[in-house]
Amino acid sequence: MTQKPSIPKGTRDFSQQQMACRNYIFDTVKEVFRKYGYSEIQTPSMENLSTLLGKYGEEGDKLLFRVLDSGDPFDKVDFDSYRNGEGGYRSAALSAALCGKGLRYDLTVPFARYVVQHYSELSFPFKRFQIQPVWRADRPQKGRYREFYQCDVDAIGSNSQLLELELVQIVEEVFRKLGIRVLLKINNRKVLQGLAEVCGYPDKVVDITVAIDKLDKIGFDAVAEEMLSKGISREAVAVLEPVLRLSGTTAGKLAAMRGVLAGSQEGLKGLDELEELFGYIASAGIGCPVEIDLSLARGLNYYTGAIFEVKALDWAIGSICGGGRYDNLTGIFGLPGMSGVGISFGADRIFDVLTALDKFPKGLGSATTLLFANMDQASVEYVLPVAAALRGKGIPVEIYPDPSKLKKQFDYADRKGIPFLSICGSSEAAEGKVNVKNLSSGEQKSFAKDDVDAIAAFLA
Amino acid sequence: MTQKPSIPKGTRDFSQQQMACRNYIFDTVKEVFRKYGYSEIQTPSMENLSTLLGKYGEEGDKLLFRVLDSGDPFDKVDFDSYRNGEGGYRSAALSAALCGKGLRYDLTVPFARYVVQHYSELSFPFKRFQIQPVWRADRPQKGRYREFYQCDVDAIGSNSQLLELELVQIVEEVFRKLGIRVLLKINNRKVLQGLAEVCGYPDKVVDITVAIDKLDKIGFDAVAEEMLSKGISREAVAVLEPVLRLSGTTAGKLAAMRGVLAGSQEGLKGLDELEELFGYIASAGIGCPVEIDLSLARGLNYYTGAIFEVKALDWAIGSICGGGRYDNLTGIFGLPGMSGVGISFGADRIFDVLTALDKFPKGLGSATTLLFANMDQASVEYVLPVAAALRGKGIPVEIYPDPSKLKKQFDYADRKGIPFLSICGSSEAAEGKVNVKNLSSGEQKSFAKDDVDAIAAFLA
Repeated sequence: MTQKPSIPKGTRDFSQQQMACRNYIFDTVKEVFRKYGYSEIQTPSMENLSTLLGKYGEEGDKLLFRVLDSGDPFDKVDFDSYRNGEGGYRSAALSAALCGKGLRYDLTVPFARYVVQHYSELSFPFKRFQIQPVWRADRPQKGRYREFYQCDVDAIGSNSQLLELELVQIVEEVFRKLGIRVLLKINNRKVLQGLAEVCGYPDKVVDITVAIDKLDKIGFDAVAEEMLSKGISREAVAVLEPVLRLSGTTAGKLAAMRGVLAGSQEGLKGLDELEELFGYIASAGIGCPVEIDLSLARGLNYYTGAIFEVKALDWAIGSICGGGRYDNLTGIFGLPGMSGVGISFGADRIFDVLTALDKFPKGLGSATTLLFANMDQASVEYVLPVAAALRGKGIPVEIYPDPSKLKKQFDYADRKGIPFLSICGSSEAAEGKVNVKNLSSGEQKSFAKDDVDAIAAFLA
Repeated sequence: MTQKPSIPKGTRDFSQQQMACRNYIFDTVKEVFRKYGYSEIQTPSMENLSTLLGKYGEEGDKLLFRVLDSGDPFDKVDFDSYRNGEGGYRSAALSAALCGKGLRYDLTVPFARYVVQHYSELSFPFKRFQIQPVWRADRPQKGRYREFYQCDVDAIGSNSQLLELELVQIVEEVFRKLGIRVLLKINNRKVLQGLAEVCGYPDKVVDITVAIDKLDKIGFDAVAEEMLSKGISREAVAVLEPVLRLSGTTAGKLAAMRGVLAGSQEGLKGLDELEELFGYIASAGIGCPVEIDLSLARGLNYYTGAIFEVKALDWAIGSICGGGRYDNLTGIFGLPGMSGVGISFGADRIFDVLTALDKFPKGLGSATTLLFANMDQASVEYVLPVAAALRGKGIPVEIYPDPSKLKKQFDYADRKGIPFLSICGSSEAAEGKVNVKNLSSGEQKSFAKDDVDAIAAFLA
């Protein structure tokens, strides 16, 4: 009964080489997160659907993977009562009757749920990171998966712009360590709201921002056209024009905006936040370009203050990291007034950038330093204590398990990228020696069996 | 609209402290696995149900979590055709119609699927480890979860007993590093088969082993009684008695068994394997007790050679690690003749043992070394470059984000276990100084702001 094995579309196996590269990324971000006082939590893969539904919009609800209740979930259901009158079924209601749980869609909602559920155990500001897979029933396509890792770092319980600064520092340090040159763009939702207010359309902040968002691609005239088509007046567009045409230094931009936003309390508050943050950035010193970009609109529906986006300077792939401040994330679970700020690193895109720029360190994934060839059982028993002693010094060592042809054993070393090989036969055993060969330089040395320090030094 | 948040029964949130402890376990095993040439792979959380069904017995099929197909899965189904004639539905068939995917039940079947699917890309023997969650719709109870991590290390593609040796060495080193004293018990399925053959019941190896398995708990007489009740003759039980009453050295046990098993080729082959393995163990030198235990029967339905089980000597909690050799795991996916051997570490039980024996290293989970108190914006801007310089030396540093009362900032340091605090106000800034206090010893020192090396040395 042969089954041809495969995996669900949109999911991936990660090979040893891929895992070595992915772990390099995860280990790098974790090390940086910890240096700023952020610690890891994990939440369950499955959440109650009541926790997830309604948090990601109507489209998001459809993209949730639902888990069938265990036991006999069908016997309790009257399927006919779920007919939609068009020959089908009311899908959302029927799946709610059959499925009480769903797979996590992101790490933000579970984080909010975690903070509310464990409120009394936590110290605030609560600084956590979380690196776990999420699942979305998106149509699979190049670069879009149904299971992928998110890598989130958030602080909750303080309004301080020092937390925004920490995230800026974390971004800079992570990408410096990874060897990726980046541009960090910052916007502020309150400034966008202020712009909408001063041009007379306080309710159209989304329309205005969506239009502004295209500034880079289509230019000011086309953006103006789009705003007009959304019912925004020519006068209002004229008010916005000087802000959208802003260039030059951050200080200059902030000063120019202060003039335009003079009539909006909200807008001025956003400017104050930006000025405080850029003041901190100047004091701390940051090793990557950081600029204000009013066209940055990501996550507009829940960010309330700073908005961040990071682009790789040497590889066009869209945003590789982004986030912002949300004033009321835990409100959906009954805990109002908790302000938080966070960013998310896109592991898959960072992987692609490192691959494209050839920036992964050489030798990732080749774990073993020395392979002892297997000549026969006696030779193996001869080298076993040597192998154990080398491992005792922390050196990864393998013994080829079978007395196969040497060609095959060499091939194994070659394919695994093992740099040293030792062939000890009966003559070495008789002399109490161990031969070790550097497979790339060809250099070969002979050691007394017990001189493990010398062998270790040769392998170093 | 307040929702009281909770998580599905049988699942868990892991706090920062728990994650620090869990990562300590995972990092320890990973480091050891790598030292023996094993590298990490990951497989998707969801597998096609065709991959999973029928691999874990009828009971296992019921414990699979099934994922509802996305889109409109109900419209394609004629529910009435799935009625079971007793007022309910044929649950297995109907869930198969609605769900094409299920959550991974263990790491072994996905590993077998991986090896077959990626056969041409792999070098054999293929040595991998895998640490990922698995899901089972078991009834939740103390110590049994619906989502839990497995931590598996396997080698596939060689019959060599050297691989069994490696697993023995890995077990010894992992638990030595963790500070848990263990007993490693070894059995061999072929020996059990041989015993069934020599007593005349070659088909009753399961009945016989299940009975032998209770030897520790109920004693020989009750075991004999159970075998008789299974239709095994008094003469057969008499043949087995000397083997079951074996004690003393491993060499003595092996010799005694060789006499009893003389009439079974399979049994003698099993003895040969055990002798070869114990020969290697003697050559390599192992720092924990390793003994033959004929009553060890775990995983009998798919192990074909060695069977392993590890018990903590100082805490009664059942097996904390186990595994064995399986000759034909990939056969279910159409690739016969691949022999493999592997073990699985029980992370939850190991966590419980380390907790009970108080063996977790002190200070796990307290990431931050130094907290700068927040006096006001000016003081923060004064310390920002110092904090950045210390982080540049790899030291985890936080700045309290708000100018709160010092009591609150002290409490924060205390609850996070931060050992050093720096309070820099306007007078320190005027003098260009930085004060640092060791919160446990009370020692306080003053440094020039730029003398980061001296500050780092004080924190070390």
